[in-house]
Amino acid sequence: MVRNGSVESPSPRPRIHQTHPHDTPLFQSTVSQSNLRRFNYWILVFRLSAFCFSLSSAVFMLTTNAAHDDAVDSPRWYHFGAFRFVIAANSIVALYSLFEIGASVWEIYSGCTVFPEFSQVWFDFGHDQVFAYLLLSAGSTGTELARQLRGVDTCRVHNAFCIQSDIALSLGFVGFLSVLVSSLLSGYRVEIKAQLDKMLAQFV
Amino acid sequence: MVRNGSVESPSPRPRIHQTHPHDTPLFQSTVSQSNLRRFNYWILVFRLSAFCFSLSSAVFMLTTNAAHDDAVDSPRWYHFGAFRFVIAANSIVALYSLFEIGASVWEIYSGCTVFPEFSQVWFDFGHDQVFAYLLLSAGSTGTELARQLRGVDTCRVHNAFCIQSDIALSLGFVGFLSVLVSSLLSGYRVEIKAQLDKMLAQFV
Repeated sequence: MVRNGSVESPSPRPRIHQTHPHDTPLFQSTVSQSNLRRFNYWILVFRLSAFCFSLSSAVFMLTTNAAHDDAVDSPRWYHFGAFRFVIAANSIVALYSLFEIGASVWEIYSGCTVFPEFSQVWFDFGHDQVFAYLLLSAGSTGTELARQLRGVDTCRVHNAFCIQSDIALSLGFVGFLSVLVSSLLSGYRVEIKAQLDKMLAQFV
Repeated sequence: MVRNGSVESPSPRPRIHQTHPHDTPLFQSTVSQSNLRRFNYWILVFRLSAFCFSLSSAVFMLTTNAAHDDAVDSPRWYHFGAFRFVIAANSIVALYSLFEIGASVWEIYSGCTVFPEFSQVWFDFGHDQVFAYLLLSAGSTGTELARQLRGVDTCRVHNAFCIQSDIALSLGFVGFLSVLVSSLLSGYRVEIKAQLDKMLAQFV
């Protein structure tokens, strides 16, 4: 059987750097190298957003005891397991986002990924998924604790503590949304890379 | 420019019903119609699991007040917002899973999807994602409430209530894992369908 594409094609070299869709009629799709580059920019934007919001959520939660009352009995974040979980989750996501921002900038400027390409797209997608679930879980847990604290005396006596932890939780949820969008984009990136690989495999 | 594949190919008719991978050397992948069928069986298994676990989680939580003590002051699930959330989330997922089980069985027996194929795969994938997040959020919220109840008198006086709600929460988490796996599988199904569509578009 004749292997189509590699024998009769007038240009047997890979032509994936041509971005015009009519140059690759075989695939009848707009997915191309330039598409991938545009995606990398969007992913960078959402990673920056995830970094900012999760870092500020962790910092806000950490500084809840920097309010007016420095009394011994005033509540601190480390008195509550759920708030410790929120700080841990947001710090982990901030660190991960920082690494991913570096990797994104590196890829945009040098044109190649930090890890081998196949590992990189799956690494990104897998971690985005896991960290989105982690942030949502931490946010839900913290929100339920904050609701419980409103029912007892804590929030009547130390209102600043409750308001500040509410702000930290909201920032954490915005961070979750950013990671969620990054995860959808990097899932689509896995797909684009797979199509580019298939194009290469057909031409060489 | 010569359009590869459609002119020189010895058999211009679509051959997607042949399942042997060597019959389609152009794609160099094992993705095929039979692969899709095997996936449908696996998705059905995880949907059944999601249905069983989320339904039993909701029922367990609903019957927490059927224990020994029928006193007026004994805690009920409807006294706690987080437990109401757990019941609502698990009921919604049980209903959705029931619908999806029906759709899966229909697809396996009749060979076609309930909605148009393109809508169906995206409908499944989108809802799986959303409901996985919903169940995780409900589970985290309920777990934090259960932890708080251990700190106050409720669990010392009404231990059966706490044990039963813990069981309901665990069942909910197993349901979450099932929906998570279904979501990954239906994400891969979107990919398989896209490849099959591309195969068809090349041959016809």
